[in-house]
Amino acid sequence: MTRHDGRAEAQLRPVQIDTEYLLHPEGSVLITVGNTKVICTATIEEKVPGFLRGQGQGWITAEYSMLPRATQTRTRREAAAGKVTGRTMEIQRLIGRALRAVVDLEALGERTIWIDCDVIQADGGTRTASITGAFVAMTQAIAKFADAKALPKFPVTDYLAATSVGIVEEIGAVLDLNYVEDSAAAVDMNIVMTGAGRFVELQGTGEEATFSRDELNELLALGEQGIAELIDIQKQALGDIAERVGK
Amino acid sequence: MTRHDGRAEAQLRPVQIDTEYLLHPEGSVLITVGNTKVICTATIEEKVPGFLRGQGQGWITAEYSMLPRATQTRTRREAAAGKVTGRTMEIQRLIGRALRAVVDLEALGERTIWIDCDVIQADGGTRTASITGAFVAMTQAIAKFADAKALPKFPVTDYLAATSVGIVEEIGAVLDLNYVEDSAAAVDMNIVMTGAGRFVELQGTGEEATFSRDELNELLALGEQGIAELIDIQKQALGDIAERVGK
Amino acid sequence: MTRHDGRAEAQLRPVQIDTEYLLHPEGSVLITVGNTKVICTATIEEKVPGFLRGQGQGWITAEYSMLPRATQTRTRREAAAGKVTGRTMEIQRLIGRALRAVVDLEALGERTIWIDCDVIQADGGTRTASITGAFVAMTQAIAKFADAKALPKFPVTDYLAATSVGIVEEIGAVLDLNYVEDSAAAVDMNIVMTGAGRFVELQGTGEEATFSRDELNELLALGEQGIAELIDIQKQALGDIAERVGK
Amino acid sequence: MTRHDGRAEAQLRPVQIDTEYLLHPEGSVLITVGNTKVICTATIEEKVPGFLRGQGQGWITAEYSMLPRATQTRTRREAAAGKVTGRTMEIQRLIGRALRAVVDLEALGERTIWIDCDVIQADGGTRTASITGAFVAMTQAIAKFADAKALPKFPVTDYLAATSVGIVEEIGAVLDLNYVEDSAAAVDMNIVMTGAGRFVELQGTGEEATFSRDELNELLALGEQGIAELIDIQKQALGDIAERVGK
Amino acid sequence: MTRHDGRAEAQLRPVQIDTEYLLHPEGSVLITVGNTKVICTATIEEKVPGFLRGQGQGWITAEYSMLPRATQTRTRREAAAGKVTGRTMEIQRLIGRALRAVVDLEALGERTIWIDCDVIQADGGTRTASITGAFVAMTQAIAKFADAKALPKFPVTDYLAATSVGIVEEIGAVLDLNYVEDSAAAVDMNIVMTGAGRFVELQGTGEEATFSRDELNELLALGEQGIAELIDIQKQALGDIAERVGK
Amino acid sequence: MTRHDGRAEAQLRPVQIDTEYLLHPEGSVLITVGNTKVICTATIEEKVPGFLRGQGQGWITAEYSMLPRATQTRTRREAAAGKVTGRTMEIQRLIGRALRAVVDLEALGERTIWIDCDVIQADGGTRTASITGAFVAMTQAIAKFADAKALPKFPVTDYLAATSVGIVEEIGAVLDLNYVEDSAAAVDMNIVMTGAGRFVELQGTGEEATFSRDELNELLALGEQGIAELIDIQKQALGDIAERVGK
Repeated sequence: MTRHDGRAEAQLRPVQIDTEYLLHPEGSVLITVGNTKVICTATIEEKVPGFLRGQGQGWITAEYSMLPRATQTRTRREAAAGKVTGRTMEIQRLIGRALRAVVDLEALGERTIWIDCDVIQADGGTRTASITGAFVAMTQAIAKFADAKALPKFPVTDYLAATSVGIVEEIGAVLDLNYVEDSAAAVDMNIVMTGAGRFVELQGTGEEATFSRDELNELLALGEQGIAELIDIQKQALGDIAERVGK
Repeated sequence: MTRHDGRAEAQLRPVQIDTEYLLHPEGSVLITVGNTKVICTATIEEKVPGFLRGQGQGWITAEYSMLPRATQTRTRREAAAGKVTGRTMEIQRLIGRALRAVVDLEALGERTIWIDCDVIQADGGTRTASITGAFVAMTQAIAKFADAKALPKFPVTDYLAATSVGIVEEIGAVLDLNYVEDSAAAVDMNIVMTGAGRFVELQGTGEEATFSRDELNELLALGEQGIAELIDIQKQALGDIAERVGK
Repeated sequence: MTRHDGRAEAQLRPVQIDTEYLLHPEGSVLITVGNTKVICTATIEEKVPGFLRGQGQGWITAEYSMLPRATQTRTRREAAAGKVTGRTMEIQRLIGRALRAVVDLEALGERTIWIDCDVIQADGGTRTASITGAFVAMTQAIAKFADAKALPKFPVTDYLAATSVGIVEEIGAVLDLNYVEDSAAAVDMNIVMTGAGRFVELQGTGEEATFSRDELNELLALGEQGIAELIDIQKQALGDIAERVGK
Repeated sequence: MTRHDGRAEAQLRPVQIDTEYLLHPEGSVLITVGNTKVICTATIEEKVPGFLRGQGQGWITAEYSMLPRATQTRTRREAAAGKVTGRTMEIQRLIGRALRAVVDLEALGERTIWIDCDVIQADGGTRTASITGAFVAMTQAIAKFADAKALPKFPVTDYLAATSVGIVEEIGAVLDLNYVEDSAAAVDMNIVMTGAGRFVELQGTGEEATFSRDELNELLALGEQGIAELIDIQKQALGDIAERVGK
Repeated sequence: MTRHDGRAEAQLRPVQIDTEYLLHPEGSVLITVGNTKVICTATIEEKVPGFLRGQGQGWITAEYSMLPRATQTRTRREAAAGKVTGRTMEIQRLIGRALRAVVDLEALGERTIWIDCDVIQADGGTRTASITGAFVAMTQAIAKFADAKALPKFPVTDYLAATSVGIVEEIGAVLDLNYVEDSAAAVDMNIVMTGAGRFVELQGTGEEATFSRDELNELLALGEQGIAELIDIQKQALGDIAERVGK
Repeated sequence: MTRHDGRAEAQLRPVQIDTEYLLHPEGSVLITVGNTKVICTATIEEKVPGFLRGQGQGWITAEYSMLPRATQTRTRREAAAGKVTGRTMEIQRLIGRALRAVVDLEALGERTIWIDCDVIQADGGTRTASITGAFVAMTQAIAKFADAKALPKFPVTDYLAATSVGIVEEIGAVLDLNYVEDSAAAVDMNIVMTGAGRFVELQGTGEEATFSRDELNELLALGEQGIAELIDIQKQALGDIAERVGK
């Protein structure tokens, strides 16, 4: 039995990162992972949230949303409902936390980076595509900002990308699940890793199912490989800026 | 004195309407008017709001939103604020009302058409671009639906497009204001018209200013001309479907 | 065919403006237009909203509400629903914008005028009655304030009144629609004009209908005449203060 | 030392109850108690809240609000704030509970009476004036309804009125406190009683103060007398309907 | 006929007050009144609400909540509903107001005492148990605070406790109603009194019923006796601190 | 260097599970893990959410809250704030998802189990204590329900417990972090496992830090051991019911 869309178990969907996608933001990309498309923007604001004021360090916060027809049937707008769902909150917190792991917040200084990830088309993996795309938008915004302010140190300390892995019935462990696979998967895991191959986030969930230690190891191996490939694509998208990361 | 971007007083910005822009919606376009870009989608749902149930007619409702970085500085998300602003509500009501004027709601039957207009880049005229784009997305969705359900009558009765006109200091009456012009205009008017040259909506506002009957006439003439040009562009975007409108 | 309540096409309903209607506010009127009754009050506060602070100018903002039984069947309170409807927001924005067009905000200084319009009985035309009544309440409040603070210039620059016009089937263009006419009208237009006969707002809407340029001209003529009559009534209500406007 | 407005300790303010005050509601009054003015309306709806469905009895529910400038300084609208204050909720619950004590809910049948009390001018005692006025509006609405539906029994079983009493420094126990007295009172008590002289509600509160059993007795005597006078005024306002109560 | 749980008419349920119940709060008790159990905590914050700033006095504010399964069937969480019910608001305001009557707010200084009452098991009388327990938690917190800050005067001026009384069919006036009695009672009264036997709050309500002056006197006598017993239990719970109250 | 509270790296805090803790719920426990105390209750309702109606299976949903003074400084109530925080939502979703992994939802039938976890004292690990305690409360409720309804199959398929592991500076990998350790940990991981030693959830987060594959393995080993110990304690708490699990 092969995968639904003909891919090999360890094969990512086609990934493309278009930079400078919008006119106004300091950093903006359209990331395409198969049929999943997310606009990621980065905005640098010259102040920090109250709990950090006067502590000489910056902050990164993320917001995530889907257009109502990013999905097959129309999803109600959160603005119309008057509140953000638990799923959205989880994703927003994940994106912000992940990016903070590869930014030297002292080097950034007392500024907030606002990351906005807006899914215009969804086919599974929107939160991991958001992280992978947001890293590029953020790094571009920081590069412009570091030049303008002559920051002594480039605040991005390492690359960061994310993908999903999971266990699909009759196929087994696979990399980069699309929507059909994700809906059918017994186990679903999101992995966020750095360029150095270290874990930032690991979120594995049995969907009314469980998984063994051996299965976990198999999933981690797939994820490590996929993330290495994604980071290569990020480096190409960043062009000249690529080599400033981690310096 | 000439216009800020070199256009003649009666000149529209470059307009482009990309159809079938997204995978999932029944109708979807990306409309570009200068630097303003709006994704418009149409969804047909097999039920009507409570106040129309059992009356043998359909309904059209619209929602409008801007990405936080559609604008030069980041705008707070309405979902995060927990409520929709008055400006958004006004625009949503305008789009829905305008489209209902050119749809035979009895011919549509007891269905609701959801229009979603999401501004991904804003440079003035987002509400009028939304109406012009939404008409195309809606007509495409209706065409597919009319075929699938073998509707006896095509429910779209005429073309519909919108533009803005205004009075700008030292220049006078101009067509299709961009953001810089809009901010500086003493008078600002949104015009929605049909293919037959009849008015659907006329919203003229003096911004801490007023306007005479002669100025009004000048503005209306500009608007009529601009809308005729926009309807030509809609017809090209609709291709084969174009001739079903009003039949 | 004659109008539902026997009026001629160009005839306003009986209008009365009772001033000093309430004990506490600086300006307050009860405006009666046929069976429509609105309490309008004006409050002057010694500060401006954040976006105007330190700019040496004032602001005017309006709030509008209806008692639950102003209407034939009980309308749910917006406070109970926890949010203001889109219709209310549109009306509030309209009232504030209209009044700002005839007030010299620099002459007012860094103060906010709060206009409250509370409809206690509704029979069509509540938003235009609100504007006409609010102008009187505001002017009285400003007169007291100008005296108390010895303002060098009286900040109200011209008169301002509003009415509705529309096209009703089998009758044609009529002035000052009541609720029955408004519900049946194919086209409905709100007009706000100054004492000098200039437009401040023009909001014409085809209700699932459209209108031609000739029909528009006919509607504008009716509106101009009605507003001139309303301004005469305002002048009588204002008494001694009347002549300070625009000086 | 005499009372602030010259009244004797046991003297009510002038009370007036104007019936049929509004066009649309089934019952409506304007009650004036000194400078306090409240519009009270009653609406009968042919359904009951979920918890009463199918139990063969009716319900009475009340809503209360103040116009922003009913008060000396402007009070923020609850609709604008997006929620009802605790004070308003307390008052609403009190009004509904009080009226239910004198209505035979089985005789009313499965209907809800909505009471709306809107304070247009406030000078103390708005909640007790609301109860006294609402009783009249409700009884008128019920009378019309009982006739139209030929109810076998008139559902109002007794009269009901309310007033406040309190202990004011240097004066002692007084009846019907106005705003100045209410602000200064050490003890404040609202009393709701029936035509038969029985208590429905007794809410006595020491405002950072306490009161003895003797003081309580003195307050109750004042309240009993004031309520008897208010019920006489209600009877006159009700005219022919007056004698149907309790039959 | 005897009471549902075998008690005499004038008999309280068994009452226990466990102090130092939680690790973190400055004052905390678990109060048990029959099957009703409430955790009461007191927190002293070094600031006052805006309306008191700079006036040299403190404030006491209370919050009240029930665990969803404090009750026989699950009650929806107010946090999930997004708003606090009217019943909760009434109780919160009552608790705060009652405690303020026995605290010298000037002696407290510009501080706020936050009282939290969380009902973990409910069997009637939760609001009066909250007041009785909160007094102990508050007094303990104030004692620690008075020592730490060497306050010149102990701010608690008298004891304070609360209980309910009511009229139950076929039994008559009873003290300290449990849930079954409370549901069946025709009249329900909450009484808050001081150690000196003075009233702080008196809230008597006929539940679709009324009560006479004689019945009121009978209820007050029961309440006075019950509160004296509760204050004895508070004194024991407070131990050494007991004698600082009112000194 | 040893742990802050003297424990060995692989040592749990003292754990106690008191069953039948509250009077009303079908299942209720107080779980104590060191100084962390959580009341967990289970309620079985005879209906399912809309998306499951008519599908012959049940659902489990969880709510989580903290008393304001569960924490060292007072935390604002979510009910007062009017919305649930992202952290709370994440925890609620985690608890529900975890429990669903060990319940045969078809065997449960069309019922919803509501789990309520209320933290009355917090010292780290509240979410994992909630899961461990909720499993016991749920199993007791299901046991009573299975007997009452004579369910053919006991729906709980395996044991389930949760703990935290983390990497603390100068100490390394440790089991069951208290608040002080949690605040200082570079890496924090929550692990949920079954009685069969399979993973249900794995949530590892570098807090502005990252972790290697070797570190991950060390953390997993600690977690496996801790969870085995917790499941032994659950079995003792469940008594006779213990052996029905998984049968």
